[in-house]
Amino acid sequence: MTTPREIAEALAQAIAASAEVRGTTSPNPAVGAVILDAAGQIAGIGATQPPGGPHAEVMALAAAGTRARGGTAVVTLEPCNHTGRTGPCSQALFDAAIARVFYAQADPFPAAAGGAEYLAFKGVETHFLDTTVPTLQPWLNAVRRSRPNVTLKFASTIDGFAAATDGSSQWITGAAARAHVHEDRSRRDAILVGTGTALSDNPSLTARSGDQLYPRQPRRVVVGKRSVPSGTNLHHLGFEQYSGIPEALAVLWEAGCRDVLIEGGPTLAAAALRLEVVDNIQAYIAPALLGAGKSLLNWRETTSMDEIMRFDITTIRQLDNDVLIEMQRKGL
Amino acid sequence: MTTPREIAEALAQAIAASAEVRGTTSPNPAVGAVILDAAGQIAGIGATQPPGGPHAEVMALAAAGTRARGGTAVVTLEPCNHTGRTGPCSQALFDAAIARVFYAQADPFPAAAGGAEYLAFKGVETHFLDTTVPTLQPWLNAVRRSRPNVTLKFASTIDGFAAATDGSSQWITGAAARAHVHEDRSRRDAILVGTGTALSDNPSLTARSGDQLYPRQPRRVVVGKRSVPSGTNLHHLGFEQYSGIPEALAVLWEAGCRDVLIEGGPTLAAAALRLEVVDNIQAYIAPALLGAGKSLLNWRETTSMDEIMRFDITTIRQLDNDVLIEMQRKGL
Repeated sequence: MTTPREIAEALAQAIAASAEVRGTTSPNPAVGAVILDAAGQIAGIGATQPPGGPHAEVMALAAAGTRARGGTAVVTLEPCNHTGRTGPCSQALFDAAIARVFYAQADPFPAAAGGAEYLAFKGVETHFLDTTVPTLQPWLNAVRRSRPNVTLKFASTIDGFAAATDGSSQWITGAAARAHVHEDRSRRDAILVGTGTALSDNPSLTARSGDQLYPRQPRRVVVGKRSVPSGTNLHHLGFEQYSGIPEALAVLWEAGCRDVLIEGGPTLAAAALRLEVVDNIQAYIAPALLGAGKSLLNWRETTSMDEIMRFDITTIRQLDNDVLIEMQRKGL
Repeated sequence: MTTPREIAEALAQAIAASAEVRGTTSPNPAVGAVILDAAGQIAGIGATQPPGGPHAEVMALAAAGTRARGGTAVVTLEPCNHTGRTGPCSQALFDAAIARVFYAQADPFPAAAGGAEYLAFKGVETHFLDTTVPTLQPWLNAVRRSRPNVTLKFASTIDGFAAATDGSSQWITGAAARAHVHEDRSRRDAILVGTGTALSDNPSLTARSGDQLYPRQPRRVVVGKRSVPSGTNLHHLGFEQYSGIPEALAVLWEAGCRDVLIEGGPTLAAAALRLEVVDNIQAYIAPALLGAGKSLLNWRETTSMDEIMRFDITTIRQLDNDVLIEMQRKGL
């Protein structure tokens, strides 16, 4: 027998497993699955493998082996009912003689949906868990909009400046915040910057831990019409360029990107905000005052309070002596 | 026998007791004290009473009664050795036959210091606990500088705006953040605003919970040379006015204020920042973008990174869908 508490704990483990593979699964979602045996003990944990590899349920079933018989599957997303590069997870669960399936999010992707219905038809108990899975949010939003989820990242002082008036900004945030930026880049499908940033900062747009590159690197994307001079870091490393945000998002979506990060500068950030494609904000805030400076986000001429663009806080983290506030567009 | 763990737990209780009386003790510090009996069990907890009332040690000794004999006192501040409106705490501890005293902060106030020395001379074991007591910080800073500790409070969007370009700002933060502002006001000795705010906003500067006034109200202080028109809320409620920040702080210090809050507007905030009297910042940040607007803290003309004014984060709190970041000037 499985208790509600065992289900809740299994879901927490499934979410943790999915967080581990965030950024490695596109165009597939980062899913986590836990198999409980008939006595309610954890028998296997799995998460989505890179495209072409097994889905989370298949990984968890493999770990559980025969202990899956008569057991319970707890999955962060409705099991797929679709034969793509791998067989349908709904059938794998049925074949393993799973008695009950709990899933936290219905599959919004038409071709893959129907897993719960299939399982119920086959006599497997299915239960929808009405809870939000943060690790699925970018993928769900991307699939609903048929474009990658867009996160706008910036670092600023508590008085709202991303640079001093002379343009200097090294370093507003500390080492822990900057290390977090690189770890986060390694989990995104692409990093977008405007031509202004590409021309003035000679960025690499790589994800590094100290001098070491992370094994997984995001696509390096420049948006705008100006040419990036040869001899720059981007030419050395390779990059792609698009004339505007709509073209960039369309091409990246087709290429399988589901979660992209805009790192600036102000022109690109302004364009994304005006197009209303900013789904998430990742704000690294330093407890420091400049008193005057440049804002990344001064993109309107005049405003009144009824034009305020509201977000919901999803996480707040202290990174040494800085704060990371992650937000999601209201109603997303 | 008392173990290090019992001392640490007693100190945490003493700090919690001192937090309860924050804002009610000026010009005295908000101190907490715990008496452990000879077996290491908590026998009494006390905190500083309003001026003229007993200090924390006397309150905790009264609660402990005869269980104090041979016991341990854990106090957030070195026991005073000074006969003011009450007798010295050092003597009260000796008279109660306390065997050991642990204190977390040496008394920086010349007239009151020497309590530890007196106790050691009388044969009581005394130990200094090298730890920071956040509830003492404003008072300690005030005593060291012979002026009240100054906290600058502001509310802004994550893009650094305190109001839209048309001046509207109701409401950038939500109800929980605004309620916290009022609770915080009830624990300050005075609230300072500039004449601009006094003239344009008709503020009350009261501390309210819903429609109810908190029992303790801060002094209402206007800084600047312009007159506040009669018929305004401030005239109805009563207020004091000073021509500039130095005069205001000098008079408030003499009147016993140790912890004051500057609530704006931009001219007063700028003056305080230029005078370098801003010891703490209390930033209520809303996860929202205005895209253009007015900053409370745009007080310089040109800046470079070497002019950045750094603070240390002391607390981060989520208040419904807003964030409160409290900071303390670096090196304070």
